[in-house]
Amino acid sequence: MPIPFPFSAVVAQEEMKRSLLIAAIDPSIGGVLVFGDRGTGKSTAIRGLAALLPKMRAVDCVYNCDPEAGEDALCAECRTKRAKGPLKSRMVPVPVVDLPLGATEDRVIGALDLERALTKGEKAFEPGLLARAHRGFLYIDEVNLLEDHLVDSLLDVAASGENLVEREGLSIRHPARFVLVGSGNPEEGELRPQLQDRFGLSVEVKTPQDLPTRMKVVRLRDEFERDPPAFVLKWKRQDSKVRNQIQKARDFLPTVEVPDATLEQAGRLCIKLGTDGLRGELTVIRAARAFAALKGDAVVLDEHLVQVAASALRHRLRRDPLDESGSTSRVQRAVGELFGE
Amino acid sequence: MPIPFPFSAVVAQEEMKRSLLIAAIDPSIGGVLVFGDRGTGKSTAIRGLAALLPKMRAVDCVYNCDPEAGEDALCAECRTKRAKGPLKSRMVPVPVVDLPLGATEDRVIGALDLERALTKGEKAFEPGLLARAHRGFLYIDEVNLLEDHLVDSLLDVAASGENLVEREGLSIRHPARFVLVGSGNPEEGELRPQLQDRFGLSVEVKTPQDLPTRMKVVRLRDEFERDPPAFVLKWKRQDSKVRNQIQKARDFLPTVEVPDATLEQAGRLCIKLGTDGLRGELTVIRAARAFAALKGDAVVLDEHLVQVAASALRHRLRRDPLDESGSTSRVQRAVGELFGE
Amino acid sequence: MPIPFPFSAVVAQEEMKRSLLIAAIDPSIGGVLVFGDRGTGKSTAIRGLAALLPKMRAVDCVYNCDPEAGEDALCAECRTKRAKGPLKSRMVPVPVVDLPLGATEDRVIGALDLERALTKGEKAFEPGLLARAHRGFLYIDEVNLLEDHLVDSLLDVAASGENLVEREGLSIRHPARFVLVGSGNPEEGELRPQLQDRFGLSVEVKTPQDLPTRMKVVRLRDEFERDPPAFVLKWKRQDSKVRNQIQKARDFLPTVEVPDATLEQAGRLCIKLGTDGLRGELTVIRAARAFAALKGDAVVLDEHLVQVAASALRHRLRRDPLDESGSTSRVQRAVGELFGE
Amino acid sequence: MPIPFPFSAVVAQEEMKRSLLIAAIDPSIGGVLVFGDRGTGKSTAIRGLAALLPKMRAVDCVYNCDPEAGEDALCAECRTKRAKGPLKSRMVPVPVVDLPLGATEDRVIGALDLERALTKGEKAFEPGLLARAHRGFLYIDEVNLLEDHLVDSLLDVAASGENLVEREGLSIRHPARFVLVGSGNPEEGELRPQLQDRFGLSVEVKTPQDLPTRMKVVRLRDEFERDPPAFVLKWKRQDSKVRNQIQKARDFLPTVEVPDATLEQAGRLCIKLGTDGLRGELTVIRAARAFAALKGDAVVLDEHLVQVAASALRHRLRRDPLDESGSTSRVQRAVGELFGE
Amino acid sequence: MPIPFPFSAVVAQEEMKRSLLIAAIDPSIGGVLVFGDRGTGKSTAIRGLAALLPKMRAVDCVYNCDPEAGEDALCAECRTKRAKGPLKSRMVPVPVVDLPLGATEDRVIGALDLERALTKGEKAFEPGLLARAHRGFLYIDEVNLLEDHLVDSLLDVAASGENLVEREGLSIRHPARFVLVGSGNPEEGELRPQLQDRFGLSVEVKTPQDLPTRMKVVRLRDEFERDPPAFVLKWKRQDSKVRNQIQKARDFLPTVEVPDATLEQAGRLCIKLGTDGLRGELTVIRAARAFAALKGDAVVLDEHLVQVAASALRHRLRRDPLDESGSTSRVQRAVGELFGE
Amino acid sequence: MPIPFPFSAVVAQEEMKRSLLIAAIDPSIGGVLVFGDRGTGKSTAIRGLAALLPKMRAVDCVYNCDPEAGEDALCAECRTKRAKGPLKSRMVPVPVVDLPLGATEDRVIGALDLERALTKGEKAFEPGLLARAHRGFLYIDEVNLLEDHLVDSLLDVAASGENLVEREGLSIRHPARFVLVGSGNPEEGELRPQLQDRFGLSVEVKTPQDLPTRMKVVRLRDEFERDPPAFVLKWKRQDSKVRNQIQKARDFLPTVEVPDATLEQAGRLCIKLGTDGLRGELTVIRAARAFAALKGDAVVLDEHLVQVAASALRHRLRRDPLDESGSTSRVQRAVGELFGE
Repeated sequence: MPIPFPFSAVVAQEEMKRSLLIAAIDPSIGGVLVFGDRGTGKSTAIRGLAALLPKMRAVDCVYNCDPEAGEDALCAECRTKRAKGPLKSRMVPVPVVDLPLGATEDRVIGALDLERALTKGEKAFEPGLLARAHRGFLYIDEVNLLEDHLVDSLLDVAASGENLVEREGLSIRHPARFVLVGSGNPEEGELRPQLQDRFGLSVEVKTPQDLPTRMKVVRLRDEFERDPPAFVLKWKRQDSKVRNQIQKARDFLPTVEVPDATLEQAGRLCIKLGTDGLRGELTVIRAARAFAALKGDAVVLDEHLVQVAASALRHRLRRDPLDESGSTSRVQRAVGELFGE
Repeated sequence: MPIPFPFSAVVAQEEMKRSLLIAAIDPSIGGVLVFGDRGTGKSTAIRGLAALLPKMRAVDCVYNCDPEAGEDALCAECRTKRAKGPLKSRMVPVPVVDLPLGATEDRVIGALDLERALTKGEKAFEPGLLARAHRGFLYIDEVNLLEDHLVDSLLDVAASGENLVEREGLSIRHPARFVLVGSGNPEEGELRPQLQDRFGLSVEVKTPQDLPTRMKVVRLRDEFERDPPAFVLKWKRQDSKVRNQIQKARDFLPTVEVPDATLEQAGRLCIKLGTDGLRGELTVIRAARAFAALKGDAVVLDEHLVQVAASALRHRLRRDPLDESGSTSRVQRAVGELFGE
Repeated sequence: MPIPFPFSAVVAQEEMKRSLLIAAIDPSIGGVLVFGDRGTGKSTAIRGLAALLPKMRAVDCVYNCDPEAGEDALCAECRTKRAKGPLKSRMVPVPVVDLPLGATEDRVIGALDLERALTKGEKAFEPGLLARAHRGFLYIDEVNLLEDHLVDSLLDVAASGENLVEREGLSIRHPARFVLVGSGNPEEGELRPQLQDRFGLSVEVKTPQDLPTRMKVVRLRDEFERDPPAFVLKWKRQDSKVRNQIQKARDFLPTVEVPDATLEQAGRLCIKLGTDGLRGELTVIRAARAFAALKGDAVVLDEHLVQVAASALRHRLRRDPLDESGSTSRVQRAVGELFGE
Repeated sequence: MPIPFPFSAVVAQEEMKRSLLIAAIDPSIGGVLVFGDRGTGKSTAIRGLAALLPKMRAVDCVYNCDPEAGEDALCAECRTKRAKGPLKSRMVPVPVVDLPLGATEDRVIGALDLERALTKGEKAFEPGLLARAHRGFLYIDEVNLLEDHLVDSLLDVAASGENLVEREGLSIRHPARFVLVGSGNPEEGELRPQLQDRFGLSVEVKTPQDLPTRMKVVRLRDEFERDPPAFVLKWKRQDSKVRNQIQKARDFLPTVEVPDATLEQAGRLCIKLGTDGLRGELTVIRAARAFAALKGDAVVLDEHLVQVAASALRHRLRRDPLDESGSTSRVQRAVGELFGE
Repeated sequence: MPIPFPFSAVVAQEEMKRSLLIAAIDPSIGGVLVFGDRGTGKSTAIRGLAALLPKMRAVDCVYNCDPEAGEDALCAECRTKRAKGPLKSRMVPVPVVDLPLGATEDRVIGALDLERALTKGEKAFEPGLLARAHRGFLYIDEVNLLEDHLVDSLLDVAASGENLVEREGLSIRHPARFVLVGSGNPEEGELRPQLQDRFGLSVEVKTPQDLPTRMKVVRLRDEFERDPPAFVLKWKRQDSKVRNQIQKARDFLPTVEVPDATLEQAGRLCIKLGTDGLRGELTVIRAARAFAALKGDAVVLDEHLVQVAASALRHRLRRDPLDESGSTSRVQRAVGELFGE
Repeated sequence: MPIPFPFSAVVAQEEMKRSLLIAAIDPSIGGVLVFGDRGTGKSTAIRGLAALLPKMRAVDCVYNCDPEAGEDALCAECRTKRAKGPLKSRMVPVPVVDLPLGATEDRVIGALDLERALTKGEKAFEPGLLARAHRGFLYIDEVNLLEDHLVDSLLDVAASGENLVEREGLSIRHPARFVLVGSGNPEEGELRPQLQDRFGLSVEVKTPQDLPTRMKVVRLRDEFERDPPAFVLKWKRQDSKVRNQIQKARDFLPTVEVPDATLEQAGRLCIKLGTDGLRGELTVIRAARAFAALKGDAVVLDEHLVQVAASALRHRLRRDPLDESGSTSRVQRAVGELFGE
């Protein structure tokens, strides 16, 4: 596996980095959708983030089960083993699984293990990519080109934290808690609104237009590619700082409060924007809470809402035929009117 | 399986809740179709309702047979066993089965058990999702995106109460009595009128637009997600009240009378609306009867018709090119003219 | 299997009931096509009719062979058995087989018995739905949505009275005499004229528009569904009367005469209507003869032609761009001009 | 198999009957295409003709080999057997094989015998419908709806008189000499000109429009259907007359002469009509020769050309945008100009 | 296999005959494309040509290997055998293989021998039609209707002289040197320019329009079909003459010179016509050389270019929106301007 | 395998030759896309280049592993073997693998070895074309007609240098470092911009329009085809010179410097052209560095940028509706404005 480019050496693209950090702090936020120009480091950032996350303690099973997890979050084998005594484990890196375009449902969800079926007459489960993404990230490039029903299944699994396989006479249920990260270029086709809405956050990325930033990106990237290990070593300290920040935010998160006033402002914002349903409202609150935790703030205030509003809401707006401005500007305008920014 | 959100903590959405209660009281009503905005708690309500229903006594077979059922409503195995003595049983929760988008007919209806066919040369039946939905709910999200012939099969089974499998040399018949609940967003494609008409009731849901309701929903939902068991405990009493109300209505239902005057009004209403066939008329009568039972009323009166008319009829109207108002308003107007409301 | 609603309790829909009775008296008429509104009791009537028909004496083979049939109308097994002595038989109800939408050709026509092929290396025939429909009814709801080549095969079998299976190395021929009843809603797609023409009779059904009829239908239907056995008992006498009438007509049919004058009028009617080919002419004569038998009349007269003309001809008209009235009115007008009605 | 309607009882449709007789006398003419109205007795005529043809002496093999045939026209098995002594044979009726719509290439052409392959590990040939049509007729109703490449294969086999199967590791060649008869309704789609051109003759049929003919057809058909054996007996003499006529014409054919003047007229006719290639010219000559043989004439004259010109050429005309009259009138007009008729 | 019509009895169609002779003299020219009217003897000419070619000495292997061939042009089996001693051989006719419409890639290219795989567990190669065409002709009627990627594969094999099969775990390479002859009717769809360009020569054929030629064709064809062996005998001498001419030209070909002036004229012609790439230029030179060899000329001169220019270039012109004349006239005009003809 | 035409005998087409040399010097540049006229020697050049490259030392495994490679770049088998001692090796030519149109994913990526699975019950990997392309070139003619998801997979593998196969229960990872060369004719369909952008360089080729060049090409090509070995011998010296030049440039590459000024100019150029993302900028720098190495220059200067700019950037421009000139002229104009050329 190629050595990943360090997360802290990713230049610019602040909204994308912030959204990924929020998802790393509170994975229940529901995944991140990254839309925009090619060659803007989407895949690089997600791989870099996974590489700097603290290694995790895992049983040596196909799902990398957490030896301390509750019953629900263990695979069948581990559940059985732990009934007899504590599970053996080792430290492993946080997995990042790529979902290749053209992947079949079998390959993603898992399927009957044909070899065992044919040679031993046993009906065994062949885990898919979802099994390997447990406790990590599932990255889908060009998510807008994937078949709808597959995206739908992935979102179901991501939401429920478990993969329920009912096919070919199998009835398997295994833990599958992962952060879904989808990226794509909207010029090549849109994701159905119904599916967009099920992602927690969405981000728009653009090619930086100022010369110094561009030179910095190219220089760093070229340096990295000519000698990856040396480059990674050089950025090790910076990456450690981010790792600690995430660790602290995760511990702090359950204690962060959301006052009624903040809740009301979130409601006002969503009514102003006319978002369908209440998922947007719930997400903007949670993202703001995770962001407050990242900043070390004990109470969620307007300033946190302001920072996450675009990421949490821009993919939930109905098209407004009378307002030709893009989703981002519509959110920003509403935020400005409401919070005076 | 994730812990369901309590039914009694579902805020607003009165028509949807009433329709689900009616279907729970008289399952022969023919299923419920829920169309409308995303994120309005459709799936939440149905799961919550199933969770509060009284547990049911069931044999430990794949169909959860009722040990006291008539011959017709037992599976083959249970029929054989009971011939030798009473069936052993235990209490189980009412099942809610999700029909995933992209599910194959095999998976839904059941199919030849390939493993046994290949390894033992026996032709055995591998029950599908319909088997597991027996005595419970079958929930189809985005029912409008399912293939027509599959929806058709499901409606056939739901109507007849049994699943007849004729394929691959199998000829199996098993009980499959369930309430079909379909949901979807009409903006993404319509269900063929022919299929809509076979659902008993239909409901339109919308995102609530007043701030207090929205805040209440978000607050409750956030509270639930941060600690599901604690939240469920808090709403236990409320859920029990609803459970008792349903139980009483079911017992009371067979004795509720429909006077000729009410029947005549139902006929007038349907003629005014120009509904095709007489299924609408029959359904409006039955739904009104179940609703009267829920209210504890011994006779079905106009007021009961008025409450259920929209749910029973709005999906049975022909498009009227001269009347651009939606189905709901057309029903309401006709009700108003007829009953003076 | 659910208890069928009694045929004699079907309210209104006289043309449909008459056409089904004619097909029951002379099955060689070639099937009945029922087009029209949903929820008008099409399926109910056909099931009710089958239920009241006299039970038939049948061998206990998969085809329900008639123990008294000619060689040609026995299955291979029965032919072999009877060569050794009379066939044992028992009384069975007239079968009604539903052809489900999405049924594969295998399932309908029959196919190689894969189990026996795989386990015993024998090439055996797995009879399909056609085998089970022998001597009864094959009902196809939404026949206009079925694949053309399947409808075509069904019509071939219905016309020849035998199912010839040539596939996968099988060469099987079994008796398959049944009345094909197809129904559908023309708004959802039309049946190719080539296929329509091969059905003997066609009927248009509509929702009754007068209040008393509607109330009667709903009251009867509701009464039936609340206690099917009691309801069936109540209508038993009426059903017996119809059964006797059919039995008598069948016996009387071979002696009914068609005078030249009637034949000539049928010819004039078809020329006036410009029907393609002579199938229409032949069918109007046969249907009139069966109808005369039903009425107990020994000679086919104009009045019989008049009663069956619409059913026998309306699906055989070419579209006339200068005449915008529907097929039914065109037939009625021609009948009026010719017979002065 | 149902008893066929007697050929000599087919009323009117002279061109169709003449063309079928020509094909029966000289099968190398290349098949007959019958296009026109439904219900005009196309299938009836072809079946009737086959039934009256003299029975043929055939070996009891799957191909009905002619025991006196040349090496080339025997199947492999018969070739081997005859090397050891004369082949045993019996008289069999001329086969008429129906090619059902939706038939797969396997079923038509023949395929690997899967049963023997699986159970005995032998690669054996499972003959298809073409094998059974050898020495008889292959009838394709709605030939215009068949897949082009299948029609193409059939025409190849019909032209070469043998079926060459190269698939699944089989390399089989068996005799398959048959007259291909295709029928269809041009309103439902046309046959590609490239394929039309490969049929020898083509015929247009129409519903007769005079009352006496129609009454005669209906009366005869009704009489037949009420008692087929009696009807066939009644027409036996007439059918024998036709049988003798065919037999004599076949014997006489090789001696019939085509003078240069006739050949020149055929050429002039085709140039006038602008037919592509020279197949038309060759066919009009051969058909005229067979027709002369039928009439007992020793020399082919203009009058014979005139009788067969439309059948041999109407399907070979290019569409002429300046001449809106149909193919038949265009041929008739050219014939009139050339022969003064 | 039917007896082929003699090549020397093919009337008119000089360009087609010349092009086929050129391809027979120098097979590396790259195949011949014949487009035009149906029934103009395309298939007849190619079969006739193959039949008159000198028989070839061949090993009795599936590829008809040349016992004197270089290593590269032997199949694996023959290579192994010859290592042990000279190969046994016999004389065989030059093969003509027909590629049927609808042929699968398996059948054409070759595939895994399933029988041996299943019964003996061996992975063996089942040679396809390409194997049988080695050293002969591969004829594709309606090449314009074949799938592009199959035509593409065929052209690859024809160009490289060997068939490389990489599939199902096989990696087989066998000699496959053949002349590809494709025919079709451009009215039924065009061959992609990319594919046309890969054929060496192209020919347009038309129905002859003068009466004597037509009568001659019909007379000869009719005579042939009534007694093939007698007809072939009659034309034997003529065919021998052509055979000798080909044999001599093949021997003479390597010594024929192309002077610079001729090369320059070819270049000027192609620039004038604006052909893409230089394949046209190379082909016109080679075809002229083979034609010179056929004529017995030692040097390629303008007159040879003039004769082959249309065949070598007409399928390589870009469509010129300002010049509506067909490809043939455009080539002829350019030739006229350049060579003063 | 046919003998390849010598690279140094390829006339004209300088940009294509330069780009292929750059890719041979620095394979990490990301492949070359060649678009343009047919018959311009695209395939010839790539095959010629591969043939002149120094032979490489390789283990005799299916992947041609480099015996001196790092762990990562060995296949599993070689890794295991080398743990026990040095790997045996031999010299092999640089592979050029053709990806045929219509190739399945199995054939390209590799798949389960069915034979071993069926006969031995073992799950083994059957390497695909990617395995054979390791350390060489993968050539895709008509890449614009390949399925997008396959091109995408190929680009992924090319970028990461390893092929990761996750299917049918296999989880295989093998080294696959190759230069991807795709060619096509844009008139037959475009490659998605998303995919174009992932190729490093792109080249446009055209038919030479001056007579002497054309004559030279035809003369050389004709000479080659008449006696390949003699021709190759004649050009041996020239090919050796190119080989040495490449070898030296590869050794020199790591020491070539990119000054800030050059980096800044590259940035300015890309901003002027509005290329999406920064891949263009990175590629122009790397290509200029490889070109400098080829020229023997120690520092990358503007002149190197100028030479490679069009190849590195022309396929990354957005369509500009206001600027109708082609990509090449747009790049040249921008280069002219920036560098004064």
